[in-house]
Amino acid sequence: MADVFGKERSALHRLAAQSTSRPYYRPLSPRGAEVGIDGRTVVMAGCNDYLGLSADPRVTEAAARALRRYGVSCSGSRVLNGTLALHEELEGRLAAFVGGEAALVTTTGFQANLALAALLDERDAVFADMSNHASLVDAVRLGGAAHHRYRHRDLGHLGRLLAASESASESASDPGRGRGRLIVTDGMFSMEGDLCPLPGIVELARRHGARLVVDGAHDIGLLGAGGRGVTEHFGLTGEVDLVTGTLSKCFGSVGGMLIGPASVVEHLRHSARSVLFSAAMPPPSAAAALASLDIIESEPERRRRVFGHARRLLAGLRSLGWDTGDSTTPVVPVYVGDSRLCLRVWQELLDAGVFTNAVVAPAVARNRALIRVTPQAIHTDDHITRVLDAFARVRRGLGRLLPAPGGPGRTEAVVA
Amino acid sequence: MADVFGKERSALHRLAAQSTSRPYYRPLSPRGAEVGIDGRTVVMAGCNDYLGLSADPRVTEAAARALRRYGVSCSGSRVLNGTLALHEELEGRLAAFVGGEAALVTTTGFQANLALAALLDERDAVFADMSNHASLVDAVRLGGAAHHRYRHRDLGHLGRLLAASESASESASDPGRGRGRLIVTDGMFSMEGDLCPLPGIVELARRHGARLVVDGAHDIGLLGAGGRGVTEHFGLTGEVDLVTGTLSKCFGSVGGMLIGPASVVEHLRHSARSVLFSAAMPPPSAAAALASLDIIESEPERRRRVFGHARRLLAGLRSLGWDTGDSTTPVVPVYVGDSRLCLRVWQELLDAGVFTNAVVAPAVARNRALIRVTPQAIHTDDHITRVLDAFARVRRGLGRLLPAPGGPGRTEAVVA
Repeated sequence: MADVFGKERSALHRLAAQSTSRPYYRPLSPRGAEVGIDGRTVVMAGCNDYLGLSADPRVTEAAARALRRYGVSCSGSRVLNGTLALHEELEGRLAAFVGGEAALVTTTGFQANLALAALLDERDAVFADMSNHASLVDAVRLGGAAHHRYRHRDLGHLGRLLAASESASESASDPGRGRGRLIVTDGMFSMEGDLCPLPGIVELARRHGARLVVDGAHDIGLLGAGGRGVTEHFGLTGEVDLVTGTLSKCFGSVGGMLIGPASVVEHLRHSARSVLFSAAMPPPSAAAALASLDIIESEPERRRRVFGHARRLLAGLRSLGWDTGDSTTPVVPVYVGDSRLCLRVWQELLDAGVFTNAVVAPAVARNRALIRVTPQAIHTDDHITRVLDAFARVRRGLGRLLPAPGGPGRTEAVVA
Repeated sequence: MADVFGKERSALHRLAAQSTSRPYYRPLSPRGAEVGIDGRTVVMAGCNDYLGLSADPRVTEAAARALRRYGVSCSGSRVLNGTLALHEELEGRLAAFVGGEAALVTTTGFQANLALAALLDERDAVFADMSNHASLVDAVRLGGAAHHRYRHRDLGHLGRLLAASESASESASDPGRGRGRLIVTDGMFSMEGDLCPLPGIVELARRHGARLVVDGAHDIGLLGAGGRGVTEHFGLTGEVDLVTGTLSKCFGSVGGMLIGPASVVEHLRHSARSVLFSAAMPPPSAAAALASLDIIESEPERRRRVFGHARRLLAGLRSLGWDTGDSTTPVVPVYVGDSRLCLRVWQELLDAGVFTNAVVAPAVARNRALIRVTPQAIHTDDHITRVLDAFARVRRGLGRLLPAPGGPGRTEAVVA
């Protein structure tokens, strides 16, 4: 008889078990622009705290005050016993910041996206970018809707899938109802560092009567003159039906958010299982997010600084012969291709004094393994120089093993 | 054309919209044995912080120290860049405490249960108590396994479903593999306050070659002489294949845990999407959980105290004519039946100075609406008297509208 404990190892697990490098679950010591690992101090170039707020004293002290006032936890779900004025204040501030009628904060960003399942049922059709975050994929699965994946950022493919679904729907047995249609995309892609083609998606959504959800996990706080995310960047605030996001990147905290029409947010508050059946966001996390939002609104120079670092990294890496794909943002992917080679590059970068992220399947497609480099506003110019020097050294050592530079879009300008 | 934003309101949403009471998402002020609501101070009898640790100074100060040392957040997933020695220490301590080879902590308890999806595929069959937590239900759905629900605590029904699945499997087209079988149950049920019939379940699992997962969300920290949970209570430590749990109840923090064989935990660390793709548990939450575990291990009188309160509440409510079902624990359900009547009872209890939880569908079956009362170790005897007085007053006022006492099991002894 089969044993549920006998499942095959995932590709990631096999890779981790075979490799002499230990790129995963490696304990790191106190955070910041530099980080301790096995007693050494190296440049931290693999953390999504883009604005460097998770250890900002204004943020940690706000969290400490909330700890003393409210405790570590509400020990219950928002709906029954876990709502504080602090949560409501954060929701009001986030709705105003991102630009929506209302907001709901959740305990993790993962659970914010899972909440979308409450908008779906078996009669609906979702159209999703193939590189969307795992939590968006799981939300569609939980919602039971048909799942149409379009090629990464490919508007033509999305348009054809929408048109095909329309004809199928018209000939279906329930013509009066038809299918509800929902387009879902990351705003800024977490591994590739490129942006969704939002203007084209908005137009397709309108033409085909589809709702549009954009996950701003990586772009809220970072993109747009005011840091309001990918919608502001494209001048399309208000043109996206619902925005989701996280507090664990630019806000330096942990938690998630959903922002949209009050009626939809009200529906999610009373129907989303990942909201109803999970303990509320801890008070220190909520207070930290509020303090970070103050800084995001008042210190645009942090965004300019991290984009300055991104420009230097992208140009520098490209001139060294590395392939950074279509990235135009502070998520700087360095495509290596083969997973094992990726781990070797990761280890040599670490030996050269730089901590990065070795990203392999299932986070990216197989044979698209990459080293992810993420600058932070708290990095100095010297930190960025050290990152580039490390990549130069690794390229000299491994040169012939590495893929030649190539791929589309490498001439696109950095967005900010 | 249908609109995904046009979904029907859930029963909970309709109820909340129709009621003049506002039992849901009501902002509460600083936590403890008493709580502020709309400027009044009432007894907090609706919080799952059973041991009263979420605002214990030893716990909040441990969290504050971690804030200052590590920041508010790791801003990344455990796998890539979010592991601290603190997480590993907590995992080691939890594995030893609950009694398993290894542990994995997750950012929420909800996500600990979702991780179980990584053990399942379409060829597996899961046998699940109908009252299991929503996150366990969603894990099975994400895993794609066949989902067989057995009547709440009904060993006969579970046995029949297991036997039926065996014959179906033998006649299937893939006889060599057969189905992997997994039994999943809450240890202590979050709404009913009764315990899973663990000895009988362990025996059925052995007889049918099924693995067994027990969710100890409400019992770890609370049940058993050492507080090690429902397995210790029944003398069955080591007889359950995998234990899941939360840090948001007895540990007064937020987070989840999975405890079992090292090989299975290693598999989950590298395969569970709710682990790989979510930011790590925040440092203050992890530090708080460690401080709470010290107290859980060293202060058994907290468990005795909360069970003393539970005994008084159960006996007192029953003698007043209320129906507390099969509860034998500090989750004290008071069955009202009708959802609207339940909200009315909730409001009158609040007017009488006691905050409780009004629990309706989907958290419980329709027509099984209940008021949930949960004592805490930090309650005084006077707090419990005030709770009983409020229930007496409400019963006098609403008497004829309320169901007559009844239902099985009301003579079972409280477990500790």
